[in-house]
Amino acid sequence: MHDASARQHAERTGIWFVGARGSVATTATVGLAAIAGGQAPPTGCVTAREPFASAGLPEFADLVVGGHDISAVTMTKRAEHLVETGMIPPRLLAATHDALEQADAEVRPGYAPDHEDAVSQQQVAERLAADIASFRDRNGLARVVVVDLSSTEPPVAPLPEHDDPAALLAALADPDRAVLPASSVSAYAAVLAGAAYACFTPSAGMGLPALTALARERGVPVAGQDGKTGQTWLRTVLAPAFAARGLRVLSWSGTNLLGGGDGATLADPDAVRSKLATKTRGLTALTGSETTPLHIDNVPDLGDVKVAWDHVHVEGFLGSRITLQTTWTAHDSMLAAPLVLDLARLLALAHTAGVSGPVPELGFFFKDPWSSDVHDAAAQAVALEDWVRRTSAQAGA
Amino acid sequence: MHDASARQHAERTGIWFVGARGSVATTATVGLAAIAGGQAPPTGCVTAREPFASAGLPEFADLVVGGHDISAVTMTKRAEHLVETGMIPPRLLAATHDALEQADAEVRPGYAPDHEDAVSQQQVAERLAADIASFRDRNGLARVVVVDLSSTEPPVAPLPEHDDPAALLAALADPDRAVLPASSVSAYAAVLAGAAYACFTPSAGMGLPALTALARERGVPVAGQDGKTGQTWLRTVLAPAFAARGLRVLSWSGTNLLGGGDGATLADPDAVRSKLATKTRGLTALTGSETTPLHIDNVPDLGDVKVAWDHVHVEGFLGSRITLQTTWTAHDSMLAAPLVLDLARLLALAHTAGVSGPVPELGFFFKDPWSSDVHDAAAQAVALEDWVRRTSAQAGA
Amino acid sequence: MHDASARQHAERTGIWFVGARGSVATTATVGLAAIAGGQAPPTGCVTAREPFASAGLPEFADLVVGGHDISAVTMTKRAEHLVETGMIPPRLLAATHDALEQADAEVRPGYAPDHEDAVSQQQVAERLAADIASFRDRNGLARVVVVDLSSTEPPVAPLPEHDDPAALLAALADPDRAVLPASSVSAYAAVLAGAAYACFTPSAGMGLPALTALARERGVPVAGQDGKTGQTWLRTVLAPAFAARGLRVLSWSGTNLLGGGDGATLADPDAVRSKLATKTRGLTALTGSETTPLHIDNVPDLGDVKVAWDHVHVEGFLGSRITLQTTWTAHDSMLAAPLVLDLARLLALAHTAGVSGPVPELGFFFKDPWSSDVHDAAAQAVALEDWVRRTSAQAGA
Amino acid sequence: MHDASARQHAERTGIWFVGARGSVATTATVGLAAIAGGQAPPTGCVTAREPFASAGLPEFADLVVGGHDISAVTMTKRAEHLVETGMIPPRLLAATHDALEQADAEVRPGYAPDHEDAVSQQQVAERLAADIASFRDRNGLARVVVVDLSSTEPPVAPLPEHDDPAALLAALADPDRAVLPASSVSAYAAVLAGAAYACFTPSAGMGLPALTALARERGVPVAGQDGKTGQTWLRTVLAPAFAARGLRVLSWSGTNLLGGGDGATLADPDAVRSKLATKTRGLTALTGSETTPLHIDNVPDLGDVKVAWDHVHVEGFLGSRITLQTTWTAHDSMLAAPLVLDLARLLALAHTAGVSGPVPELGFFFKDPWSSDVHDAAAQAVALEDWVRRTSAQAGA
Repeated sequence: MHDASARQHAERTGIWFVGARGSVATTATVGLAAIAGGQAPPTGCVTAREPFASAGLPEFADLVVGGHDISAVTMTKRAEHLVETGMIPPRLLAATHDALEQADAEVRPGYAPDHEDAVSQQQVAERLAADIASFRDRNGLARVVVVDLSSTEPPVAPLPEHDDPAALLAALADPDRAVLPASSVSAYAAVLAGAAYACFTPSAGMGLPALTALARERGVPVAGQDGKTGQTWLRTVLAPAFAARGLRVLSWSGTNLLGGGDGATLADPDAVRSKLATKTRGLTALTGSETTPLHIDNVPDLGDVKVAWDHVHVEGFLGSRITLQTTWTAHDSMLAAPLVLDLARLLALAHTAGVSGPVPELGFFFKDPWSSDVHDAAAQAVALEDWVRRTSAQAGA
Repeated sequence: MHDASARQHAERTGIWFVGARGSVATTATVGLAAIAGGQAPPTGCVTAREPFASAGLPEFADLVVGGHDISAVTMTKRAEHLVETGMIPPRLLAATHDALEQADAEVRPGYAPDHEDAVSQQQVAERLAADIASFRDRNGLARVVVVDLSSTEPPVAPLPEHDDPAALLAALADPDRAVLPASSVSAYAAVLAGAAYACFTPSAGMGLPALTALARERGVPVAGQDGKTGQTWLRTVLAPAFAARGLRVLSWSGTNLLGGGDGATLADPDAVRSKLATKTRGLTALTGSETTPLHIDNVPDLGDVKVAWDHVHVEGFLGSRITLQTTWTAHDSMLAAPLVLDLARLLALAHTAGVSGPVPELGFFFKDPWSSDVHDAAAQAVALEDWVRRTSAQAGA
Repeated sequence: MHDASARQHAERTGIWFVGARGSVATTATVGLAAIAGGQAPPTGCVTAREPFASAGLPEFADLVVGGHDISAVTMTKRAEHLVETGMIPPRLLAATHDALEQADAEVRPGYAPDHEDAVSQQQVAERLAADIASFRDRNGLARVVVVDLSSTEPPVAPLPEHDDPAALLAALADPDRAVLPASSVSAYAAVLAGAAYACFTPSAGMGLPALTALARERGVPVAGQDGKTGQTWLRTVLAPAFAARGLRVLSWSGTNLLGGGDGATLADPDAVRSKLATKTRGLTALTGSETTPLHIDNVPDLGDVKVAWDHVHVEGFLGSRITLQTTWTAHDSMLAAPLVLDLARLLALAHTAGVSGPVPELGFFFKDPWSSDVHDAAAQAVALEDWVRRTSAQAGA
Repeated sequence: MHDASARQHAERTGIWFVGARGSVATTATVGLAAIAGGQAPPTGCVTAREPFASAGLPEFADLVVGGHDISAVTMTKRAEHLVETGMIPPRLLAATHDALEQADAEVRPGYAPDHEDAVSQQQVAERLAADIASFRDRNGLARVVVVDLSSTEPPVAPLPEHDDPAALLAALADPDRAVLPASSVSAYAAVLAGAAYACFTPSAGMGLPALTALARERGVPVAGQDGKTGQTWLRTVLAPAFAARGLRVLSWSGTNLLGGGDGATLADPDAVRSKLATKTRGLTALTGSETTPLHIDNVPDLGDVKVAWDHVHVEGFLGSRITLQTTWTAHDSMLAAPLVLDLARLLALAHTAGVSGPVPELGFFFKDPWSSDVHDAAAQAVALEDWVRRTSAQAGA
């Protein structure tokens, strides 16, 4: 490992959370401080194991947190709430209290479309980009990675501007138009600020072709979309295994129960459509089966715990039937938070190495990977390991 | 594909089942005839998909079945019983009746240690080898693959002869000694007959070092051990996936319920010890956890259905806990039978290509792979695909 | 038991199925014949145990089947299909073939609203009632019990006529109006024919107040509604047990997967609303919890098998949490059919004893019992036993 | 409710825990103080609902705790540990700290057979009884209820003295003999002290016929045995429901995973035999099935959480098969503690009303009820409610 004085001189990297005061960002910030401070091991972080551990990624202790949010409830308040629900251990909140306060001091007001009618989206994006740049300068950071963790938006109605960078730029300048959803304005702000970008939600974000083109053009690496944390991850582990055995999946039915803020957001039938789409796309690709009924239910008494039940019906030899049922129970934010830290570290490496545009090998982290049609979790793990070795060499790390 | 007239001239390959009148061998024989006859697709056969399908393996229609058994109940009777229990569809029994009768006509009396006191194990093995050779000659077969499907034996008490080929050969010739369990006498007979060999059970079989050495010496490819069909397969799919995510398995607890002949065999505490050992070895290797309680219960009313429940307790980010429970329900023989056909096809290729001794890349099929410490099912699938491409080229297929 | 000659003189009772050619009616008819013929025990029939067995109910051998249906596929064809799917054992179809043909010969065309525009619903009901009366006369039956097993209808829009018998009779006579759904026309026909009546579906049937009043007035006993066969039954077993322990149910979430005709019917969002309403009503009454998300998914590959998963989240001592998960797998028609035979036997007794109108003690059989707010399965069992003793005495049985 | 001044004059009742410093007793003491202090509702207490609530049982605030234990770890320390494992909420420990200290001050050294060789078991019992009497006098208690919560003992080898009170008394006086297990010495001490007694463990306790006879003779009410808290309770809810439907249970297979002290105790194959015997007795009685494989595994990482999986295989109509699987997850001590408080309140009533010897109607609380062969949980609940009404009237409450 690096010794402390060496780290004094190490480059520092910023993580800029869109949705900084939500459960996942708060949990990631607590965790980052606890790992850096030696109060917790980096369990659940992919990048803590080899070949990542020796690939020259930024150290946990060299990551600095800031972000946008439209909520006035501070990260510390949010963390206290997560302690009360039993998710975050009290001793870790005590140990990371100062780090949380520091991070929250770097939080700036996010973009709330309904309250910014008078200005163009270009102006909004410039304001957001300025926040990121100022965070970078103030903290002497080598680079910043923006990670979108904000609430799921409904699917976006397609516009011609979404496919054409020039048309998009023109429309953004028009104060009477709002051609982008909030998540995509944040993504555009990342491009303007020259920051790497990850979309951990099913919202459009950088996924619109015109924005992806801009990211490529301006040299920022991007990755998405929709974090593959629990049930979907499990499905992309199991489905290729059935295929490898020559077994035929007839149907894959599932139910998710969850409470917390995410449960409430997804109780909205519009928002849930985005989520259900990304959740079944990979499964259909892997199995060929179109019978994949899936539900997400808001069960407030479960709090941040998510319970997912899957029933897989499979045809085997001579038409015989196999059933596999899985029940998965986990604190959802505890699954997401370490992957968010992984993405920040890996995108920092990509940025250093000069990678630009979507990084297909980061598909390991996503339900609906950009620029990749690989969903098989084991194949994605191999591809990710190969990529980090290659990119690390390229970066001279 | 090959056309029919080409197949007239194609080499034919024999499958010689040790335990030919049991559920798995009978199911495999019904299935082989149904696939060859076009009454059933080869679902559940790994070798039916690419790259295996075009690797020049023997066609299903070119496989001929025979075997040893100590039971007098014919394969046809066994199949009728499996129809009654609801496992084999009536229409398939009707369609394959003649093929079953033909296969059963090639069944010869197996080795029942208690009834052969007067002769040496060498003499027994020579008798068994002669049965195999005569089957090959009578049917004009290019080669034979022996597959051991007989009932699980208790663990074997180690003897010096098990490690030393010369000492073993000397002891085998002594009519007053019985240094090998029945499964290993069958394995030795395969070597004597120059037949490839697969051990689908947890019994010792070819696994004793002295026998493995003889197989290598005499140029026969062998593979084992203990077919990885259901619960263990699932575990070796899931455990590496947790590791790839940096999650730490704390305990992996399991229960198996099954009836049928296998349930009754494994109700014997001696026999079950062999099984439990092979079932947990890979899991411990993959997870590092020693808390892996496992039970196998004889539940006669379940018949050939096996129900396996697993409870996996995992540590995630910041000490949070994740639980995954899996419930697997399948007809056990329906899982095993297609893999048995795969092994016969793949070992025939290995034999053609001049491979001798244990084939580690066939570890995909086994709970406790010989000459390999890879248990990760996805990694095994990749290795198997690479091997078949290489070996196919080598065989000039 | 009664000897054969005594039975020659025993009263015979008719069962008239609305939906006679569906899975449940066909299964019930096969089962009735198999039980009467000694080819199967009456497992699953409540009335086969004490105190019912000695309460003087009509013997299985004294029940005669007929019914209405709008399908042209005969009961025999339907039964052959159910054999193919693995639900009905082949030997039982062989043993009951003649009985099925006989029953199907008693099937008359049902009421298909779209095809009978020209006549009044009064005329339709009279035609249906005449079919029932003619069945009774032709077979020398002492009485007939009508059991509605037809496909679930969407919820009915309320009309003033549904609450007022006189207004209803007037509206029925008007050929330009169709104030009743098909299920209620069938119920009215039962009243006209003086037949007892059970509603095994969530459709309106006799449940409209005006029809219930007519049933009471004309002296026919009726029972409903929506057979409590699997998941709902299980819930009404478990929920009172939690209450007896002072434990507080926070949420009860469930999913049903099923194929077959029922799966297809319930894939219609209108029809499923009726079903979901009756399924959650009792649960809410028993637990006080309003968090009861429930889904029914059409999974065609499951055929007639129904899989129901429930997740119960419970508060215990000092705010601690308990979870109970249940997974129920059964052939749905095999659960319903014996209860249908039970209802026919019990309503025949009620009719003999002069009971008229809704019988609350038959609530044991229903998701949404008429004239009763008892949902607790154990309490319902006790009430049913008391009732059969009382009514049996009253009937002089 | 009673007002505070009335309670000043109310009789106070003692609860004397054998095993006072274990998890269950500590949890019960925390809970008692929290309920009495209004910091927690009495969720999970059967006696908090009607008809118990108005049956004149001692108020929670009028119960005083003391007990025996062989451990030197105080109740406060134990409670702190239970807070750390996440079972007891921190705020409740803070609120009940003084009550715990007070209770622990009433704990006296229990009977540790290996350390008391020189004295007779009569002398030991007298010492224990004197502790109870002194607790009663010191606190001005109207009566004391002893509740055995100590670790499960291995099954006891039968002796003639266990059946004959006179012979037992003679043997107890002999310093060279130790005819009773520790749990039975504690039970005998309760009789000597004139205290009511409940056996919440599978150990022999008061269950030996000679001790039961003494209890009856000396006028103390007793109840046992082995608290029916989780899996077994669930089984006795479900099994009678299957029977009421005429369905036939073929096999009922189960597994328990648990950590904590109880997990470690039951990892001892001798101790677990006692437990497995009481756990399957009721099930066999209720179902008639002898196929009831059951396991208890020590999984230390689960802590006080217990996970129980059951697989029920049932025969339905026409030989069709039904499977029900249940997965139960709960903090074991949180299930037991409220029932322990219930038993103390109910046995105090029984004592007041002059009931002596085993109370069969308290069978609701036990896996293996004394003087009763009723296991059906719903029937037990009805019997318990009837009993409390009767006994309350008898006690003039």
